[in-house]
Amino acid sequence: MKGGVTSALGFLANGARCGIKKSRRADLGLVYSHVPAVAAAAFTTNVFAASPVIVSRHHLRSKTHQAVIVNSGNANCANGPRGEADAERMANAAARALSLPEEAVLVASTGIIGRPLPVERIGRALPALIEGLSRAGGQDFADAIMTTDTVRKEACAKARIGKATVTIGGAAKGVGMIYPDLKVAPHATMLCFLTTDACISRDMLERALSGAVDTSFNMISVDGDMSTNDTVFILANGLAGNARITGEGKGYRAFADALGAVTRALAKAIVADGEGATKMIEVAVRGARTMDDARRVARKVTTSNLFKSAAYGEDPNWGRIVAAAGASGIEIDPRRVSVDIGRTKVFARGAARHGADKGALRKVFAGRQIPIRIDLGSGACEAVAWTSDLSEEYVRINAAYST
Amino acid sequence: MKGGVTSALGFLANGARCGIKKSRRADLGLVYSHVPAVAAAAFTTNVFAASPVIVSRHHLRSKTHQAVIVNSGNANCANGPRGEADAERMANAAARALSLPEEAVLVASTGIIGRPLPVERIGRALPALIEGLSRAGGQDFADAIMTTDTVRKEACAKARIGKATVTIGGAAKGVGMIYPDLKVAPHATMLCFLTTDACISRDMLERALSGAVDTSFNMISVDGDMSTNDTVFILANGLAGNARITGEGKGYRAFADALGAVTRALAKAIVADGEGATKMIEVAVRGARTMDDARRVARKVTTSNLFKSAAYGEDPNWGRIVAAAGASGIEIDPRRVSVDIGRTKVFARGAARHGADKGALRKVFAGRQIPIRIDLGSGACEAVAWTSDLSEEYVRINAAYST
Repeated sequence: MKGGVTSALGFLANGARCGIKKSRRADLGLVYSHVPAVAAAAFTTNVFAASPVIVSRHHLRSKTHQAVIVNSGNANCANGPRGEADAERMANAAARALSLPEEAVLVASTGIIGRPLPVERIGRALPALIEGLSRAGGQDFADAIMTTDTVRKEACAKARIGKATVTIGGAAKGVGMIYPDLKVAPHATMLCFLTTDACISRDMLERALSGAVDTSFNMISVDGDMSTNDTVFILANGLAGNARITGEGKGYRAFADALGAVTRALAKAIVADGEGATKMIEVAVRGARTMDDARRVARKVTTSNLFKSAAYGEDPNWGRIVAAAGASGIEIDPRRVSVDIGRTKVFARGAARHGADKGALRKVFAGRQIPIRIDLGSGACEAVAWTSDLSEEYVRINAAYST
Repeated sequence: MKGGVTSALGFLANGARCGIKKSRRADLGLVYSHVPAVAAAAFTTNVFAASPVIVSRHHLRSKTHQAVIVNSGNANCANGPRGEADAERMANAAARALSLPEEAVLVASTGIIGRPLPVERIGRALPALIEGLSRAGGQDFADAIMTTDTVRKEACAKARIGKATVTIGGAAKGVGMIYPDLKVAPHATMLCFLTTDACISRDMLERALSGAVDTSFNMISVDGDMSTNDTVFILANGLAGNARITGEGKGYRAFADALGAVTRALAKAIVADGEGATKMIEVAVRGARTMDDARRVARKVTTSNLFKSAAYGEDPNWGRIVAAAGASGIEIDPRRVSVDIGRTKVFARGAARHGADKGALRKVFAGRQIPIRIDLGSGACEAVAWTSDLSEEYVRINAAYST
């Protein structure tokens, strides 16, 4: 459903231009909760984690949080000790201006790696940014976090918990360097900011976020390149008035399902807007012995340049799917494997189905959505991954993006 | 040095057109040794290994081998039981025509996946192919194994062992689906055929091949896609008359060094001719705790689409190098890491060197050869990997290559 980072009760947001980007586009965003919220986060597992990731991890030791400050145009990554000091100054400036404790503010950055962050520009823009906080500002926030994104990415879902209705909304950005592998807890240039008015314990919020991230952001790829800055934040301020979620009951499941719907919608929006993307490819793997096996096969196929180029060329070259699946490093019995493209089976029991309807296959590949199903025939575990195709435009965008 | 698959004493070869390819290009090749040779092989680790891989593995149980038959234009992969029967028929037809035992013939295929192999065309072409075997035929062989290759790939080296001079020569093909991970022993669409007149035990031949493959083919990438058909064969017929190599002495080292020179030359030739390639990028990693760590970091950087696109755009975007290295999954202390592009240090102790000479960096990226050095600062192990850049032409080639 329609909505974003300010759909849940008690959340305001805004976006503005502070001058980090050379262009005239907005590059500074702020989300604010009227009341203290519990927070959970998932960060990149890249060893060169950016400075805002390090600082936010640190701030997550606090029990409650009330704001998230984000800039685009500069990743504040690979800047050494100065980078961390700058991320700290950025968070602290927002905290002071909002009259919050320092650790109540979380921080994120996205943009070019290895350039000093012009914190003074952020500081100068803060008063007007805060002055303009509003519910309508959710869209301005979603705009401000974009880099090479071509569309704003927002999503929202509601869940019924007891007699209360809980809302979860969010905004995300990212079109390149997209191959997240996020881990939740006191540890993404895909950024996602989620807000909810649910009343939930931190433990359960972390658990719900972990599950949601694993079946959404951690299953998408645009280019197979993991960022140093990937970050997902969720703030839960409790204003919906539901009975507090503290364990895995019906309320938790309703919350987790709604959260999953929001993260999946945002993750798919990232792939659909992927650099140079003309197609959205969904690879569903089933019959795996373990969930990890299913995930590895699905992710391997979604990172195959050859298959992604074939998809761009609208050529149902399923041999490239099979080759990629076989290179995933897991044990597979080739004689048990089948592959379907749309409703057409192209590979069964280790062999090509030479009679497969080529017209039907071409029709699937001519569409904007390409569904691939791989059955490993060895177990009951499944996973779904999403990717864009690989177009000449992808190369142009990334060859021209100059440092 | 100049030379190829017939440079070593006692080897003949030929190439011909049998009609597997729609084009008028040659598609069938044969290498033959006058006398029985010991053989070693390295094959793809893809679980969907092609039928010729399975059949050759089987034939390697024989103690000696005397011929290798290869077709291009059809991978004979994903064809089920029929595929294996066809690979067997292909090998057997060559064995009969050469009056050799069945298992003395090794077999390889490269081309499209999932189409039945027209073995009868191979059979019809064999008499003339054998009739034309010659030393000059090495070039025809090298031509016959090409698919989308634009240049013939041959290499040769000599080693002094005692008073004897040993020659090692070879031919290879491959420009796409290049990310080999080959394992030696009674286990490649990169194909490589090596011949030598060295006298060497099978054990030591396998050991030398394993070492040579690990520092050459297993360190190259064009697109990060592992093939179902990757194969490296080496035949050693002993005609150089050197004292037989049976252990790790001086003779073995001389042989292994020469073999390494040949495989490295062929591996780099594959990258240089990589689909759409305009650059050759060398990523040297040192200071790793283990060899495996060094290899993983080097290979991760060489498979980064973002960095490869930047290289195509001649943009020294080293942030993408750092991000890729950090996503390699090994433990790295970011504060110890440094990165050099050409002779310019761009990253040291976890931070950008903001004073780095941008003119010098742009000059390196404007060249055809781009040398990158990464020092992890944590140990004494090193590895070198090679890749091509990612160009619009790569996408065009693979979007247009129709099934």
